[in-house]
Amino acid sequence: MSSKKELRVKVCKLNIDLQRYGLVAWTAGNVSERMSDGKRFMIKPSGVSYEDLKPSQMIICDLDGNVLEGELSPSSDTHTHAYIYRHMKDVGGVVHTHSNYAAAWSAVHSAIPCALTAMADEFGGEIPLGPFALIGNDAIGKGVVETLTGHRSSAVIMKNHGVFSIGKDATAAVKSAVMCEDVAKTTWIAKSLGTLQLIDQESVDKLFDRYQNIYGQRGK
Amino acid sequence: MSSKKELRVKVCKLNIDLQRYGLVAWTAGNVSERMSDGKRFMIKPSGVSYEDLKPSQMIICDLDGNVLEGELSPSSDTHTHAYIYRHMKDVGGVVHTHSNYAAAWSAVHSAIPCALTAMADEFGGEIPLGPFALIGNDAIGKGVVETLTGHRSSAVIMKNHGVFSIGKDATAAVKSAVMCEDVAKTTWIAKSLGTLQLIDQESVDKLFDRYQNIYGQRGK
Amino acid sequence: MSSKKELRVKVCKLNIDLQRYGLVAWTAGNVSERMSDGKRFMIKPSGVSYEDLKPSQMIICDLDGNVLEGELSPSSDTHTHAYIYRHMKDVGGVVHTHSNYAAAWSAVHSAIPCALTAMADEFGGEIPLGPFALIGNDAIGKGVVETLTGHRSSAVIMKNHGVFSIGKDATAAVKSAVMCEDVAKTTWIAKSLGTLQLIDQESVDKLFDRYQNIYGQRGK
Amino acid sequence: MSSKKELRVKVCKLNIDLQRYGLVAWTAGNVSERMSDGKRFMIKPSGVSYEDLKPSQMIICDLDGNVLEGELSPSSDTHTHAYIYRHMKDVGGVVHTHSNYAAAWSAVHSAIPCALTAMADEFGGEIPLGPFALIGNDAIGKGVVETLTGHRSSAVIMKNHGVFSIGKDATAAVKSAVMCEDVAKTTWIAKSLGTLQLIDQESVDKLFDRYQNIYGQRGK
Repeated sequence: MSSKKELRVKVCKLNIDLQRYGLVAWTAGNVSERMSDGKRFMIKPSGVSYEDLKPSQMIICDLDGNVLEGELSPSSDTHTHAYIYRHMKDVGGVVHTHSNYAAAWSAVHSAIPCALTAMADEFGGEIPLGPFALIGNDAIGKGVVETLTGHRSSAVIMKNHGVFSIGKDATAAVKSAVMCEDVAKTTWIAKSLGTLQLIDQESVDKLFDRYQNIYGQRGK
Repeated sequence: MSSKKELRVKVCKLNIDLQRYGLVAWTAGNVSERMSDGKRFMIKPSGVSYEDLKPSQMIICDLDGNVLEGELSPSSDTHTHAYIYRHMKDVGGVVHTHSNYAAAWSAVHSAIPCALTAMADEFGGEIPLGPFALIGNDAIGKGVVETLTGHRSSAVIMKNHGVFSIGKDATAAVKSAVMCEDVAKTTWIAKSLGTLQLIDQESVDKLFDRYQNIYGQRGK
Repeated sequence: MSSKKELRVKVCKLNIDLQRYGLVAWTAGNVSERMSDGKRFMIKPSGVSYEDLKPSQMIICDLDGNVLEGELSPSSDTHTHAYIYRHMKDVGGVVHTHSNYAAAWSAVHSAIPCALTAMADEFGGEIPLGPFALIGNDAIGKGVVETLTGHRSSAVIMKNHGVFSIGKDATAAVKSAVMCEDVAKTTWIAKSLGTLQLIDQESVDKLFDRYQNIYGQRGK
Repeated sequence: MSSKKELRVKVCKLNIDLQRYGLVAWTAGNVSERMSDGKRFMIKPSGVSYEDLKPSQMIICDLDGNVLEGELSPSSDTHTHAYIYRHMKDVGGVVHTHSNYAAAWSAVHSAIPCALTAMADEFGGEIPLGPFALIGNDAIGKGVVETLTGHRSSAVIMKNHGVFSIGKDATAAVKSAVMCEDVAKTTWIAKSLGTLQLIDQESVDKLFDRYQNIYGQRGK
């Protein structure tokens, strides 16, 4: 659990990381994290240059997306983040990007098929395609929640739009967004080389189970 | 309104940003901004390395493209910038690049179709294709102005050439150039994955209207 | 021969280089080097951010993959590295990545054909395709060793997975991983432009022979 | 005319620039410049990491490729550079790369067609395809010289190999290599989008003539 001040630094850095990882253009994209009381989350302001983004500008909202603290307008995707936190109790972090390769799959209305062990590890199979939805009400949030609830994947590509990813905290959701773009790219290259050779379901299951339980440092 | 000195810093930095954003090779590309009297604009010199570009080298021209202040020769596209400022009173900034993905669409004589919500937001639909025109007289400027006048898009791809983008100031025009390349890339990736699923016109209209009026910080 | 302290610095730097060369996403990828007694090797820990990776965190294992020194869990690919060192006496360095272009060839179950002199120089012909194998036992190591034993190539792409490369030390194995991705990219671009024109075997043989014996500084 | 010391700094920096511009992997690629007496040239050593390259390591050769000054072995392409300087009196700089997009065109044995005004400006039309030739004697140099003599283009792509570019000095040859890769990339993207729309010869001629005589700062 981070103090509010530490969380400002963390959420600001992870937003800037979206640019560092090449997932966003100009001011697009946003990262949020649920606060320790479970009832609020912190998100970046709307339309501020990543060069100028500062921890003090991070905005605290309730789970209806109302601003509780912050001088600037919150990300235009704030209501979608709020909807996700409201309906998925275990989600502690949410990320949204228009990263090029993942968004491209969404623009042809195709889920990303699983032909890579790294994808089986991280997403447990394909990355699903969510519905087309306009910004401005609960439609995008609803589409994300309906697609990801009960699904192994921590990322969804929304039709003609881009990626929403979730995780136990903001770092995990950023990891999901980074890995989603990475496998979206490799799978696209592969598809242009020939026929994708999908991994059989039994192997996918084994890989996912192992990675979720063994990879990395214990207790982290 | 910036002082002349501040404007030199701004225009120089935005030109260098073209390289930072990966939109230009070698010394190609240029950014200008209309000065506060409306009758002059500031542009970068021709053929100077981005590493060596300094605010003091920025050149001030009248709206016929004549140099008023500056020791170096102005950008070879100066007359096109001048033509645009002369014929589009609301334009305060102009950018020109040969950015790879946008230029590629222009080399097959195709507008960039709208299959991404980010593109509907920013450009209000497709990015139009302008005519083939040679440098050296008003032909390019005329092609840009005729294509963009009355069009929602702030960017045009000129046949076999590259991008011209406009905005209320140079920053807005650079944003347009960055977003144009970003959607040109994603749409290209998508096209090589399968059949592009275009966004219906009603949704495009709603997205454009909302983004132009709501996104970002009020008063900016 | 490096001291243990120098080797920690070297192995840590080469792991970070994987990120610098664009071969890995997030914490994926790993580099190891056999120690001077021939009976141990040094590898990075599992799941640690490249930003945070330090020489002191490098882990020393025996050739069965048991940890001899180190506080963190070793790379999840440690047993594959151990298998390779155990079965290929001349190998002094091992690298594993999921680099995008090479992994893409593996996802369509195709070796990378040799249409570039740089590839003939470095790999002596095509980069071979290894079997599909799950992590968790000796299957991957066995697939790597069986594919590379007696083969000119220092890199193998494992089906639906990514690259394993070997060398006389870790630097040579990193070079192989870098060159593998570079030729995988160029060959992919070429394939999408038209029919790959392969280099005839006699020329491939001459190029490989010359490069292995003449290129670079003598005695290095 | 640069002093020998200044030339060491210039040639070293331009070699490192190849990496900065993304034209080379590992230690591949090389830049040389003819010295002011016309009878010698300076080139980088073979197989030294770009991170470690220093002005003092630059090597001076006569026009037969014999080393006159320098402790290290010269670039393995030294004899090709020498051949070019010997046979093309106006050439003051030579660059060689395996840059990905240009090399890909060479791997399908295709010249790069001219569908971009920037390409007409810089190369006066298509970038020609040179013969397949093995390293180790005069074959590559002969292929470069025969292809570029009397040709407008300052760059040639050699079959299954990569780019050689020439210029009045090393900076001009590096510019040619950078622009060659840039147009090779854009033209590849375009080709995968649809049918390339070539620029008519009369327009190509006008663009080339104008750019060679007007662009940039006079006297530079």
